[in-house]
Amino acid sequence: MITSLRDLGMALRSGELSPVEHVTEVLDRLATDSHNAVITLDAERAVAQATALTAELARGEWRGPLHGVAIGVKDLFDVAGLPTRAGSRVLADAPAATADAPVVARLRAAGAVVVAKLHTHEFAYGPTGDVAATGPARNPHDPSRITGGSSSGSAAAIAAGHLPLALGTDTGASVRTPAALCGVVGLKPAFGALSTEGVFPLSETCDHVGVLAADVHAASVAWDVLSRPDGTGGGIQAPGVAGVRVGVLLDDYWRAFDPALDAAVDAAAETLRARGASVVEVSTPMVGKLAATYPVIVGAEAYATHAAWLAERPQDYQDATRERILQWADQPAREYVDALRAKRRLAAAMRAAVADVDVLLLPTTRLRATPIGTAAIDVDGVAVPVRPQLLDLTLPFNLTGWPAVSVPGRVADGGLPAGVQVVGVRFEERGVLRVAGALAQE
Amino acid sequence: MITSLRDLGMALRSGELSPVEHVTEVLDRLATDSHNAVITLDAERAVAQATALTAELARGEWRGPLHGVAIGVKDLFDVAGLPTRAGSRVLADAPAATADAPVVARLRAAGAVVVAKLHTHEFAYGPTGDVAATGPARNPHDPSRITGGSSSGSAAAIAAGHLPLALGTDTGASVRTPAALCGVVGLKPAFGALSTEGVFPLSETCDHVGVLAADVHAASVAWDVLSRPDGTGGGIQAPGVAGVRVGVLLDDYWRAFDPALDAAVDAAAETLRARGASVVEVSTPMVGKLAATYPVIVGAEAYATHAAWLAERPQDYQDATRERILQWADQPAREYVDALRAKRRLAAAMRAAVADVDVLLLPTTRLRATPIGTAAIDVDGVAVPVRPQLLDLTLPFNLTGWPAVSVPGRVADGGLPAGVQVVGVRFEERGVLRVAGALAQE
Repeated sequence: MITSLRDLGMALRSGELSPVEHVTEVLDRLATDSHNAVITLDAERAVAQATALTAELARGEWRGPLHGVAIGVKDLFDVAGLPTRAGSRVLADAPAATADAPVVARLRAAGAVVVAKLHTHEFAYGPTGDVAATGPARNPHDPSRITGGSSSGSAAAIAAGHLPLALGTDTGASVRTPAALCGVVGLKPAFGALSTEGVFPLSETCDHVGVLAADVHAASVAWDVLSRPDGTGGGIQAPGVAGVRVGVLLDDYWRAFDPALDAAVDAAAETLRARGASVVEVSTPMVGKLAATYPVIVGAEAYATHAAWLAERPQDYQDATRERILQWADQPAREYVDALRAKRRLAAAMRAAVADVDVLLLPTTRLRATPIGTAAIDVDGVAVPVRPQLLDLTLPFNLTGWPAVSVPGRVADGGLPAGVQVVGVRFEERGVLRVAGALAQE
Repeated sequence: MITSLRDLGMALRSGELSPVEHVTEVLDRLATDSHNAVITLDAERAVAQATALTAELARGEWRGPLHGVAIGVKDLFDVAGLPTRAGSRVLADAPAATADAPVVARLRAAGAVVVAKLHTHEFAYGPTGDVAATGPARNPHDPSRITGGSSSGSAAAIAAGHLPLALGTDTGASVRTPAALCGVVGLKPAFGALSTEGVFPLSETCDHVGVLAADVHAASVAWDVLSRPDGTGGGIQAPGVAGVRVGVLLDDYWRAFDPALDAAVDAAAETLRARGASVVEVSTPMVGKLAATYPVIVGAEAYATHAAWLAERPQDYQDATRERILQWADQPAREYVDALRAKRRLAAAMRAAVADVDVLLLPTTRLRATPIGTAAIDVDGVAVPVRPQLLDLTLPFNLTGWPAVSVPGRVADGGLPAGVQVVGVRFEERGVLRVAGALAQE
């Protein structure tokens, strides 16, 4: 199985491997996946599309680097002909979607073959990936541990080597955290950069469509296709980072609980410095207040979406999801309005605080993958709740709307994956991916 | 007193009238204004600026059509050196603003001289103009009647012939309704077109900065200055409307209670048809539901702004304002989130319903100016509440964000002014002003 999109693309284009052979192999792997990553296979249509794409290649027609490439889609996106169940029994009887979400359609038009809908934390409302109607997703690095979430199946399927690329969503962590915990690449673009039409909403203020990928090259190709009208793609052109100004964050807020994570960031900073970047220390004292607006905003918006269903069929929610949403049932409008105003003010203050750097470099999470079902873990004798540690380092950039990518960091102890996050301050997505590519040394 | 900006500009540029003479004359008129339009004169600084602008003209320097022109500013905008009191005792001890609001600064840089802060309905939260710490504003056409609001002083000062131009704000009606009731021109640009920085907020979702003017030419000059980086202005270049597609609205929602208002629209449609426009009937069955989101959205945002003051010093609010805001104290966040979502959905539906026309033509209000302090009036034996009739025909375009201008319509009975509203669907501000100029036959 070729897992690198670069190698896969060459094999497909040269005829060494046909789209039908590739898609069939991926479908076979997904059918026997042991990580609970798959919700539905779209085998018949995938093979039919692969057949057509194989014929195109035989005629010398090539759509670009995604031609004939199998991809997965988090089960939060509409895919024509399949139900969107969002990981919940609430949508067990959802009708088949009548159209692809625009981002799905865009990838398909570029030659990608949608082979499966993938596991999601129920309604994307959690960063662990172990709360869903179909049970927990399992981390390919240790099946007793969580994948992270909510794009749990996307990360697991890529980490297991089944797929080079999958679509995810990220409201506070949901692309980057599972990417970090599973040791793959996760890109959350700038807010509003990609359409959320046809994607089950969690929070219109914070939802982002994103990409999970086996490597930075694959994420870059997907970004090119998704963001450019003529989307022919091409990946990273120039991996250099000479002269790039990298900010590392001094505030306690940004510190990990697992020393391997801070060490991975230190190693990444060293790599960038050795390649000609300058690394400077910056401080964002407002980040705690900014982050405090997140649960208020997302809670209000999630409750508004779910209130009617919660009244009619509360038993169809997983207990954790129902309890999390219901805590916002009595929220006054004033708190929500105040939170939105504070978010705008504090996001502007945060931008001003780091205005001189091109990117920020920090851990993606404060912990690595924890055992499934664990609400708190012991760190030096202190019970540390898991959930915030998987959200707090990513959600500030859903509030600011800045692009961010998580790449696997260097893990000195050889243990579970540790994610390093590159966040664009002055850089847009391509610049962030360029820095991430330099870290990955692809 | 020259009230036309076109004539005034020629007189100022030719030296027939100096900025000092003009500003002094305006200050004298405002000092003896009998419509309660004025909150504060800025006499000393105005004369100093006029003196400098007079010297510039003597040196052959001309800033454009606002050079040396006296303007007024609704007391909701920051003007450096003066307090912003927003028509309320709550802000009786407000400190002087340290800087001009950007829109004020833009007009000043173009040579306008700010001579006065003008009356506003308290905190801009009302379309009548008769609720304010300084008492009701009075309509120059009949001082026993309201001006409309909330940009009450801006409309009254222009209608009284004191000023050619003033800044106002429009959250649901507040530029267009007082313009209509006082017989002047009022422009609400597209949402977000002009900065609301330095303007006391009512609703971040619906607030618009706008312009009140003695004629369409003056409104166009102001729009040019406010909207263009190099703002040298010039007003309407081509008043033609040949080929313009004008939509008139069939739904009962849009019908006025005062037949003179519908008649004014019919006459305006006839004028446009005679000049080569096509007039078509269109229907917007969703407008009632769209309009129902307005009080929920504005109420939530107003309450969030005022909650602390309402708790600390309720007695400093006018009774009507306090009661109106407090009715939103217990609003759940869910209702507000639902209203914002419905607004977006219904605004898109409304655009789709009228997508084939360039502009809409309709009354600005359902009633003409009512006696001060009247909550309801008798129409054919039915008690009609005044307030909604002064809001309902304008607020849909705060929700859609489309540009709209109110111009004085033809009044067959020779009575109080009747406003005709031109709303841009496919047209932007300049197109809307061009149609309005054709109606005004300037």
